[in-house]
Amino acid sequence: MAVKLALVVRADLGMGRGKIAAQVAHAAVAAVLANAGNRDFAAWLAEGQPKVVLKVASAEQLAEVVRGAVAAGLPVELIRDAGRTQVEPGDSGRVDALTGALSLL
Amino acid sequence: MAVKLALVVRADLGMGRGKIAAQVAHAAVAAVLANAGNRDFAAWLAEGQPKVVLKVASAEQLAEVVRGAVAAGLPVELIRDAGRTQVEPGDSGRVDALTGALSLL
Repeated sequence: MAVKLALVVRADLGMGRGKIAAQVAHAAVAAVLANAGNRDFAAWLAEGQPKVVLKVASAEQLAEVVRGAVAAGLPVELIRDAGRTQVEPGDSGRVDALTGALSLL
Repeated sequence: MAVKLALVVRADLGMGRGKIAAQVAHAAVAAVLANAGNRDFAAWLAEGQPKVVLKVASAEQLAEVVRGAVAAGLPVELIRDAGRTQVEPGDSGRVDALTGALSLL
């Protein structure tokens, strides 16, 4: 497999699975938006968006991965939680009319 | 908040958090690719990609949400696991040179 998306999560933050999923989704979307013009992106899509979700144990270890990616010339996006990546259910709107009764994962 | 992405996960499948994150990321990317030309998409991006990760208890309940979205004219993507959405670490390539030693989340 020539092209894949590695999603690296800090496991030391005590995030629940829903929070992790929201952050990983944010990272995947950021990676797609930043690389949609790349040749590798088309290959990645054609291969079914292969991705792997990995963990690190600290901010330092994540920074090390980021530095390594930059040094290797690999595209990399660093996501920091803005405290609103995963919003609460119950906002007004057409989506909530549909999903407002569902629980957070 | 006018525009958000609701990511609805079946909680009855016994998926681990890494698997859930990979599937939710797949769904978010599919939603972005399918809606990048929509006016709502630009608003969603400008608002910081607000998203919510919700759960349902069965395939039937998920199908109900999908039917409701279609009926409401909301864009919806249904993701089925192809068994390779989350690939194993250790494939050859430049990403693995960087992340091959990390564990799956």
